[in-house]
Amino acid sequence: MIREQASNHVHELMDTYPDFPSPGILFRDLTPVFADPTAFRAVIDALMHDALTADVVAIAGVEARGFLLAAAGAYSTGVGVVAVRKAGKLPGDVLAQTYDLEYGTAELELHQGRLPAGSRVLLVDDLLATGGTLAAAASLVERAGYVVAGIRVVLELDALGGRDRLTGYDVQSIANC
Amino acid sequence: MIREQASNHVHELMDTYPDFPSPGILFRDLTPVFADPTAFRAVIDALMHDALTADVVAIAGVEARGFLLAAAGAYSTGVGVVAVRKAGKLPGDVLAQTYDLEYGTAELELHQGRLPAGSRVLLVDDLLATGGTLAAAASLVERAGYVVAGIRVVLELDALGGRDRLTGYDVQSIANC
Repeated sequence: MIREQASNHVHELMDTYPDFPSPGILFRDLTPVFADPTAFRAVIDALMHDALTADVVAIAGVEARGFLLAAAGAYSTGVGVVAVRKAGKLPGDVLAQTYDLEYGTAELELHQGRLPAGSRVLLVDDLLATGGTLAAAASLVERAGYVVAGIRVVLELDALGGRDRLTGYDVQSIANC
Repeated sequence: MIREQASNHVHELMDTYPDFPSPGILFRDLTPVFADPTAFRAVIDALMHDALTADVVAIAGVEARGFLLAAAGAYSTGVGVVAVRKAGKLPGDVLAQTYDLEYGTAELELHQGRLPAGSRVLLVDDLLATGGTLAAAASLVERAGYVVAGIRVVLELDALGGRDRLTGYDVQSIANC
């Protein structure tokens, strides 16, 4: 029910842009969903529906759009928020994880030692596309000594099969297309 | 009182890194504040303390760390969140604003037409340093036809005088150093 309401908001409000940011890409823009108070709240509540029963102590968001979801989710459930950032943004003792893009590679980083070992962390992002970014983020969470309690995304692009790169995790999406 | 509690959390938990990301920069890292559930909630509640009495209908956050504060603030007050992004990230009809960095320039963008004209928007970010980023973000909010109801930051670096570039706005910070 909570997922269905949130899914309806997503499908009603999201915009689609052909050939952005590059030719051949069909860009799904969720910012209209986030700008709408009712839709934003419904999406966050649906993403977090089982966070507390899953004993989650922090929400991890992937830079940058994942920050919007992780922070609101952390506030809503009364836990902390952890930032999985692009390379070079975090000072101090960080872990790095490289992953493949269509052309070339990218790198994500996460601080070490910010949570007790074994902390259960819920990983969130706006989109599940090829799954490469979320797989890298999940690796970082585990290499830092935490447990990935689940992966939650707003929109899953079924045709890209990203879920197949996240086997072994509890992956849930609010809407599919 | 709410500001004082939040300020104490910030001073207790923030980390300082000399020469990051480049020599001569003293980097203030607030991620330990955000990872702590009590501190994170106190900071968001202090940032948003007058958002509803100020008739704010959306919280605008500056990419990327500002997203963490804007999204949690929007959830906590039941309004929407708007993303002020780095150039090239937003599809469709966007406004761009260039601003000066120490060496060179940078550009921020904001969607047009996402909120009704005259909407009161609260602008948030983690740090007020030179004020260049927030001045550019405030210009974008106004050029999109909205009203800057206020500017709220977690930490103000007094020595950089950023407040002087934001005259005419209601600028409030939780902590100073």
